[in-house]
Amino acid sequence: MANQYTIGLDFGTNSMRALIVDVQTGREIAQAVADYPSGKAGIILDDSNPDLARQHPLDYPKVIEKAVVEAIKAASADKSFCVSSVIGLGVDTTGSTPMPIDAEGNSLTSNPKFANNPNAMAWLWKDHTGHAEAEQWTKAAEKQHPEYLAKCGGRYSSEWFWSKILKCARVAPDVFDAAYTWVEIADWIPAILCGTQKPDTLVRGICAAGHKAFFNPSWGGYPAEAFVASLDPKLGRVRKSLPNVCANVSDLAGKLSADWAKKLGLPAGIPVAVGAFDAHLGAVGAGIADGTLVKIMGTSTCDIMTSKMGKDLADIPGLCGIVPESVVPNAYGLEAGQSAVGDLFAWLVNSVKPAGQTHELLTKDADRMKPGQSGLLALDWHNGNRTVLVDQRLTGLYVGMNLHTSPAEMYRALIEATAFGSRVIMERFEKYGVKVSRVINCGGISARNPMAMQIYADIMNRPIAISRSLQTCALGSAIAAAVVAGAHPDFDSAVSKMTGVQDKIYTPIAANVAVYEKLYKLYLQLHDAFGIAGIKSDISNVMKDLLTIRDAALAE
Amino acid sequence: MANQYTIGLDFGTNSMRALIVDVQTGREIAQAVADYPSGKAGIILDDSNPDLARQHPLDYPKVIEKAVVEAIKAASADKSFCVSSVIGLGVDTTGSTPMPIDAEGNSLTSNPKFANNPNAMAWLWKDHTGHAEAEQWTKAAEKQHPEYLAKCGGRYSSEWFWSKILKCARVAPDVFDAAYTWVEIADWIPAILCGTQKPDTLVRGICAAGHKAFFNPSWGGYPAEAFVASLDPKLGRVRKSLPNVCANVSDLAGKLSADWAKKLGLPAGIPVAVGAFDAHLGAVGAGIADGTLVKIMGTSTCDIMTSKMGKDLADIPGLCGIVPESVVPNAYGLEAGQSAVGDLFAWLVNSVKPAGQTHELLTKDADRMKPGQSGLLALDWHNGNRTVLVDQRLTGLYVGMNLHTSPAEMYRALIEATAFGSRVIMERFEKYGVKVSRVINCGGISARNPMAMQIYADIMNRPIAISRSLQTCALGSAIAAAVVAGAHPDFDSAVSKMTGVQDKIYTPIAANVAVYEKLYKLYLQLHDAFGIAGIKSDISNVMKDLLTIRDAALAE
Repeated sequence: MANQYTIGLDFGTNSMRALIVDVQTGREIAQAVADYPSGKAGIILDDSNPDLARQHPLDYPKVIEKAVVEAIKAASADKSFCVSSVIGLGVDTTGSTPMPIDAEGNSLTSNPKFANNPNAMAWLWKDHTGHAEAEQWTKAAEKQHPEYLAKCGGRYSSEWFWSKILKCARVAPDVFDAAYTWVEIADWIPAILCGTQKPDTLVRGICAAGHKAFFNPSWGGYPAEAFVASLDPKLGRVRKSLPNVCANVSDLAGKLSADWAKKLGLPAGIPVAVGAFDAHLGAVGAGIADGTLVKIMGTSTCDIMTSKMGKDLADIPGLCGIVPESVVPNAYGLEAGQSAVGDLFAWLVNSVKPAGQTHELLTKDADRMKPGQSGLLALDWHNGNRTVLVDQRLTGLYVGMNLHTSPAEMYRALIEATAFGSRVIMERFEKYGVKVSRVINCGGISARNPMAMQIYADIMNRPIAISRSLQTCALGSAIAAAVVAGAHPDFDSAVSKMTGVQDKIYTPIAANVAVYEKLYKLYLQLHDAFGIAGIKSDISNVMKDLLTIRDAALAE
Repeated sequence: MANQYTIGLDFGTNSMRALIVDVQTGREIAQAVADYPSGKAGIILDDSNPDLARQHPLDYPKVIEKAVVEAIKAASADKSFCVSSVIGLGVDTTGSTPMPIDAEGNSLTSNPKFANNPNAMAWLWKDHTGHAEAEQWTKAAEKQHPEYLAKCGGRYSSEWFWSKILKCARVAPDVFDAAYTWVEIADWIPAILCGTQKPDTLVRGICAAGHKAFFNPSWGGYPAEAFVASLDPKLGRVRKSLPNVCANVSDLAGKLSADWAKKLGLPAGIPVAVGAFDAHLGAVGAGIADGTLVKIMGTSTCDIMTSKMGKDLADIPGLCGIVPESVVPNAYGLEAGQSAVGDLFAWLVNSVKPAGQTHELLTKDADRMKPGQSGLLALDWHNGNRTVLVDQRLTGLYVGMNLHTSPAEMYRALIEATAFGSRVIMERFEKYGVKVSRVINCGGISARNPMAMQIYADIMNRPIAISRSLQTCALGSAIAAAVVAGAHPDFDSAVSKMTGVQDKIYTPIAANVAVYEKLYKLYLQLHDAFGIAGIKSDISNVMKDLLTIRDAALAE
């Protein structure tokens, strides 16, 4: 049989990537990256409001054309490749990144009246303009529908769908009134490829709806209209425009339209999979399976697990989402995360800026240290805590400095802090019955920093595998495309054929594990003392225990 | 009347300074600094033991000769000066810096057998080799004589007299056995100038004895022989060698010997005042008076107050000393301090080393910030906490970092932390009835960093005066010399004539005071939570309150 390929389209914060993948082996034969033409590194900003972050929806078709055409050109160097061997497309995006559309399913920015109006654009995931609105959604849900909150960690975020729509209704009623409905770009982008963007034909994915928009089949889909309207009566209309069902990534968003087939040089009518968030399809590309925790490590992390449906699954406090089929069909998708990981290390290098230091040099020095020998302990909360505390109003902490504390010690302490935070997440999964039998890390840091991965193995006390692919999000999209194209009977078989891990497995080192067990106890003390209201505790042992651990490490 | 002068000799950690002062006006007409010839910057170190720090006793006569001769030479440019107008000498030194001497009062290092033996040298104040012994002294005193500890903050330090002697008995019995007795260099140096170093003629000062060697007239002088011998029977002999009384700085150590007069070119027989520690005479040179808190600010700080004898004075927990006449006659000398101040700022500049930054540049940036706007809060414990917690096993802490936290913000937070620590000390004085009606800062930082002084005024909510002299320790020694030489009837009148403050007084700014009141409450929460065992508290408000204070500062 001739080789067959799918194309995964990965819409990131700053650029978009097209990846062409062999559906049998997962081999990545070509890729291309296109920058969004608008804004600063793809983001529309507002000097007077640091919370604002938008993307221009008309950038999306432009980058698709550019990246796919380039990727196909690059793939053509491979003799086994030809455009007719491309059998499907998949899409992953950032999120929650909702945008207003008109009754035809077009972006409001297609209307000259709104062409340059940021409120008519896509409200990027990291737009926090709706923080007051998020509070109101949380309070309203606490009163009227606590079950809504139980599926999204107990607190509704300013980054999410309804916060942004309510904010728009308040600050830009002209835009709000002109919008027929709102759609996540994870749904809109596949739809425009298929020409199905009209609201009545547009397929919405459960990943975005379930994790960010209070959608759950157990209460009949999107939240009750009365609840939505209680925040603002105008919102009732938006709620009415939403469907009662959502699809998952094994479903068809539609078939590639003739128009787009022509633009891209691909066969018309090939299937396009329902879109999902980058982290969720990233977990697929990394090799998700029941019992496997996939950590997608970048500036922040997403921690994804699945749990087969049909078994009892408790609400897990602090998780930012438990959504049926948000990762793969027939399993709950569980999403957790850390608000800053790579960003934390970058803070030390780029903001504190120790003279002459780089990530590489600091890592080299830090790698010579034994666990505990610096006497330092940090919390990983410079950007708040996403899981399990779900609290953006938490901040960073260092304890244990002396007059000789060095930047490399501070760097290592930050890495350790993120690993401790990671263990908190893992233990939360396990406490509620989701056993973690395997950990796969993927994303930039996992590939670049072996020391960090060893620290994760030692602190989590688990072997850590690293995904083979460096582009697990785009690969996950390509896998979804392979499934909807029928190349595999299901996700399990697609994932097992198309993904893999690197040979090197980071195995816990017993001596390090023993020291980190002690440090983790201290981390937890600080975690709870600073992070949980209403607990009285004695933390006067922390500095002394750190010194005792340090003295023992130095005496070895 | 012709002008008259005294010379203050200030023996620091790295060098010695001679200062020639007009006894009527306090005018400093000349000075000279001499480096100790031995060791690294004057300190004998041991690569294999970071706790060890000694000075070579034979360096002291060498630097006296060098510095005094040079200072006299420089003073001779002043037409009113001639050597016969020098009427006395005073001495201040670091401490506790005890050294073993033989039956003639000579340093054991004069004996070729011990010439290069560090254990036969002066055990410099910052030698911490006796930390285990300090624990034992503390435990023994708790059991047998808790009143001893009540006068020195509740804990006996590794830096102090008896810890060092016990350590020597254990690690260097040959040295210990060869020593007739031990003497603080604050006492030995005046004695050699007068030729009175023989143990039966050597005058010991109450400053060193009272603050560091458990001496107090209320229990009859030095600690009971049975108590001392309970730590090690060999120590009974050292205790026996000590006198029952100690002198104060208004007393005569002796008269300048003919030998030394010749070496220095000074009149033989002029009075030499009893020596004292640099901080205590520094307070005199800064203008100490009842109700005045003098802060001697350098790498660390000493906080000195006096309280007229005859009034009731409670034991003040956490103070490192309450000693009759340790500063001036007829008053209790009260000593507190912070373990790191300038050292803390130097840590950021020299160890974290933000690229392109200096103290000056960081200060410039920090000076543009409003109180609270960084959201950062630090504890000033990188080198432990001397007062009021008396605990070297405490460490530094930062809380409130975000992904943009800058070195200048971290620098300002450290300055604020030392000011909060300073306020804790002030409040401890006042809580026990020693009212602080005036604050005078002296030492390098007070002269160099106006921003820091304004922060101190705002945080302590007191006007802050800065001493006129940059050499308050040497000036204090010269004042003691003026008193023993009869130029003034008493210290009060000598201090009022010979010292003064700068015109610029730092006055609290109400708006800053209000913000710092809030931050101080948070500082105290962390201070107690990390510093005091057995207290259970809820500190979950700290990060959030810091953000609230920051938001308010930024919204102004």
